[in-house]
Amino acid sequence: MPVMSASDLQDFLAEHFPQVGPWRMRVEHIDDRSIRVRMPIGDAHLRPGGTVSGPAMMGLCDSTMYLLILAQIGPVALVVTTNLNINFLRKPEVRDVIAEGRLLKLGKRLAVGEVAIFSDGEEEPVAHATLTYSIPPEGNGK
Amino acid sequence: MPVMSASDLQDFLAEHFPQVGPWRMRVEHIDDRSIRVRMPIGDAHLRPGGTVSGPAMMGLCDSTMYLLILAQIGPVALVVTTNLNINFLRKPEVRDVIAEGRLLKLGKRLAVGEVAIFSDGEEEPVAHATLTYSIPPEGNGK
Amino acid sequence: MPVMSASDLQDFLAEHFPQVGPWRMRVEHIDDRSIRVRMPIGDAHLRPGGTVSGPAMMGLCDSTMYLLILAQIGPVALVVTTNLNINFLRKPEVRDVIAEGRLLKLGKRLAVGEVAIFSDGEEEPVAHATLTYSIPPEGNGK
Amino acid sequence: MPVMSASDLQDFLAEHFPQVGPWRMRVEHIDDRSIRVRMPIGDAHLRPGGTVSGPAMMGLCDSTMYLLILAQIGPVALVVTTNLNINFLRKPEVRDVIAEGRLLKLGKRLAVGEVAIFSDGEEEPVAHATLTYSIPPEGNGK
Repeated sequence: MPVMSASDLQDFLAEHFPQVGPWRMRVEHIDDRSIRVRMPIGDAHLRPGGTVSGPAMMGLCDSTMYLLILAQIGPVALVVTTNLNINFLRKPEVRDVIAEGRLLKLGKRLAVGEVAIFSDGEEEPVAHATLTYSIPPEGNGK
Repeated sequence: MPVMSASDLQDFLAEHFPQVGPWRMRVEHIDDRSIRVRMPIGDAHLRPGGTVSGPAMMGLCDSTMYLLILAQIGPVALVVTTNLNINFLRKPEVRDVIAEGRLLKLGKRLAVGEVAIFSDGEEEPVAHATLTYSIPPEGNGK
Repeated sequence: MPVMSASDLQDFLAEHFPQVGPWRMRVEHIDDRSIRVRMPIGDAHLRPGGTVSGPAMMGLCDSTMYLLILAQIGPVALVVTTNLNINFLRKPEVRDVIAEGRLLKLGKRLAVGEVAIFSDGEEEPVAHATLTYSIPPEGNGK
Repeated sequence: MPVMSASDLQDFLAEHFPQVGPWRMRVEHIDDRSIRVRMPIGDAHLRPGGTVSGPAMMGLCDSTMYLLILAQIGPVALVVTTNLNINFLRKPEVRDVIAEGRLLKLGKRLAVGEVAIFSDGEEEPVAHATLTYSIPPEGNGK
């Protein structure tokens, strides 16, 4: 069982990342190895041509995996991203995007996971990322 | 439906890669977006300590995705790997390894997929890779 | 010799990406295989703790390599990022960041390069990325 | 100053990796942030078409960075590769390959570096990799 619920994660976001208000991510599901986060499309993410920007998708992948890890180990401030590898697969629609995250490993020192991003309602991902996080020595109660 | 069966892929391997005989990969399943390949453990792959070597796992990921793509577009010689990103997650057992591959995109010019590697019978992957291939202009009949 | 100068690239940014005004990137150097871009620090990039955010660094890597490619082949709208792999190495200072980009390959269909990011005046990079771009068939005059 | 010389590294290879004899890597240079390793071409690495195989190049990247790290911290057995990202850039010649490795970060828990591979005598790399290693708690005397 995760130690933080979707509602806990939402409160954590509001408290620690008030300035990313326009991103307005919503945690729709969390369990002990997966998470789903919705990012409503706002003008801030649109590129010329009307699609979601690459940095917005990269930021969403990063936030999604960060929340998935925090949900397991609690709100440890010092978890940091060490590696992100993303493949951009298709042009996203002008529509909400959904991030589906999944843990591949939650170790004492490193956590690794993958995130697939979808335009809402589509079956094929628009992007896919794998990410690694460093967990500080005192950070993992497991 | 793939255009090459598991048996076709096995024949292709035997004909074009006779020198990797010791790797003795066996295609156990193929469909239009996924593949499973078994690599029996032989001395050639063992590292000090008795686990499967990193290069053996990287080679398995590469071969698995290559076969998955060929199964869709036919035995096109000029499909080439352009990127491989692999995370090593756990120490493998001294046991057969199983590669589970999945296509994320099969485009006209690029194909992208992911491969998870498991010690036979285990639920947690020992490694996870994403790979990109360049498909030559004449190479994709779709 | 590149076909676009630093000043051409700056005009291109102002015309096509007016909404990223706050990022205010400045092209300080361009030649036929490398580029240097400065990103002054503004409030938009700061994370709790006062460092530059991960998405801001990823966006800077992407923009830097994109400009380096455009400088070689001209303002081809359809060049798209297909892969970005970034390692976060050190906590950045609260200071301008400098991106040093270098082409590893400029092919007819794919371009690959690397970008190192530095806090202004420091010798050790805070992040390092490799990136791949797909170049449309009509896009490369070389 | 590195704590292991090129000759020390060569002895380490001979002792711990006797089974990779055919790879016959030779450490040509080592200092406190870079390394050069030569891999003579033997039949074991050749693919159909006569080029160096992908797994051979990936193995060379991994070995090169591993030796570069050991040279700094001593022969610590438990340094393990956690991530490797490689871009294949050009078809290698049928000729020795040279790996040029460079440290990007040597931390207490993680080391990150990059390796470029060249066909001997050529200026453009045939492949470029970034790699991350986990260093065990007792492993880093620095």
